[in-house]
Amino acid sequence: MTKPNILIVNDDGILAPGIAALIEAVKTIGTPYVMAPDKPQSGQGHAITIHDPIKVKEVFHFTGLKAYKCSGTPVDCVKIARHVMYKDIDFDLCVSGINHGSNAAINIIYSGTMSAAMEASLEGIPAIGFSLCDISMEADFTAATHYAAKMIRWALDHEFKKSLLLNVNIPKLPIEEIKGIKVCRQGKSGWKEDFMEVKNPRGESYYWMTGEFVLYEEAEDTDINALGNGYISVVPSMHDLTAHPALEEFRYLEDSQ
Amino acid sequence: MTKPNILIVNDDGILAPGIAALIEAVKTIGTPYVMAPDKPQSGQGHAITIHDPIKVKEVFHFTGLKAYKCSGTPVDCVKIARHVMYKDIDFDLCVSGINHGSNAAINIIYSGTMSAAMEASLEGIPAIGFSLCDISMEADFTAATHYAAKMIRWALDHEFKKSLLLNVNIPKLPIEEIKGIKVCRQGKSGWKEDFMEVKNPRGESYYWMTGEFVLYEEAEDTDINALGNGYISVVPSMHDLTAHPALEEFRYLEDSQ
Repeated sequence: MTKPNILIVNDDGILAPGIAALIEAVKTIGTPYVMAPDKPQSGQGHAITIHDPIKVKEVFHFTGLKAYKCSGTPVDCVKIARHVMYKDIDFDLCVSGINHGSNAAINIIYSGTMSAAMEASLEGIPAIGFSLCDISMEADFTAATHYAAKMIRWALDHEFKKSLLLNVNIPKLPIEEIKGIKVCRQGKSGWKEDFMEVKNPRGESYYWMTGEFVLYEEAEDTDINALGNGYISVVPSMHDLTAHPALEEFRYLEDSQ
Repeated sequence: MTKPNILIVNDDGILAPGIAALIEAVKTIGTPYVMAPDKPQSGQGHAITIHDPIKVKEVFHFTGLKAYKCSGTPVDCVKIARHVMYKDIDFDLCVSGINHGSNAAINIIYSGTMSAAMEASLEGIPAIGFSLCDISMEADFTAATHYAAKMIRWALDHEFKKSLLLNVNIPKLPIEEIKGIKVCRQGKSGWKEDFMEVKNPRGESYYWMTGEFVLYEEAEDTDINALGNGYISVVPSMHDLTAHPALEEFRYLEDSQ
């Protein structure tokens, strides 16, 4: 039986421990093909590089597989992997991560990890983004790797729409304390922004963005609630941003001219 | 009566003709406050700047209003405008654009213009993104400016949810040929990517992203169809990416452990 071909991308960069963990998970199941940013690209959202060229270099620190680093964004990684470096490979799945830090709730919007997964699903490759709710570079990926392998096997074993896009978040817990998997919706939340002002030697100000995650609801069916209760959250996601319930509400605009 | 306070942002940068057109539209209605990137930032999606500081400088080439340029992304512009430069202003509306080029269909995902509008709506400021389907810097903004003013007046005159987010695209037509406004859903589409390979003097390759817009459906209720028939498209949009209809479909995952 042919082994499945699995594209591996991330947003924390080619040297992040999270991508090494994901490669280990994939190796037990299929053939990994890696393309990751050459530097951390957290918070890049769905950015693409159109005003600059993109540089790609093969890397050799992973053994027994093909891997490249790319000067572009996580979404660029998917595009150039699919259309240049791995253009002859027919991918069965794309996995992104394992991200260092949560991409639950509104974080999906800012996340390079999830945007890379979304880009793959837009191109017809089923995709799963994995995130561990621990931003540390020394995070313990044991549970995350175990469950990533499980979800990858599941995804490959099932018939589903080519547009499959799952946002999987794993709580920061020892594997024996994880209660299971919950399928949920994206929790309503935002960031309470703040900026740290610094003066340069000429007395001119510049600003570092900081912020605090704020949850706008207490509800049982959200990803945030699942994670808070020790479950892995799985949010089936999509790229249609239409507010469908609002279509009729705005219809009268058509007669306003 | 107090004039409404309107935040103006874009992704083509502080010098783009499209933002000057939008300022003209706003001046007739309320008090404009401008914050725009100091260079073109098309395709930045929902990227934010967290690994570098953000620089902001006041600019004076618009008369009779406050305006700043910012080294960050379009989303950064909204955050820093709201939390630093204009922190004492209570905004009634945020308008983004007028973008040089369409943000209909899947383009909303990659668009800095629409991500800036989305960020404002996330922060509780009703927001509208305007795009003219003409990428030229010499584009004729007459019709776009007229309809932007109309939509801004409409938005200020109506009660609506704070989360209002509209994606407005204006066809490249003389004003007298525009047939009216259609409220539509985001058309299903993608980009067929290609990369142009160039060699540097050392013989190493680098790549420029190119691509071709591909429509995946022929349907009457999409933004693409409205634009093709001479209408302005209005897509009520949102930031919940949950694929709600798929939640039940994946429920069995919860029992798979």
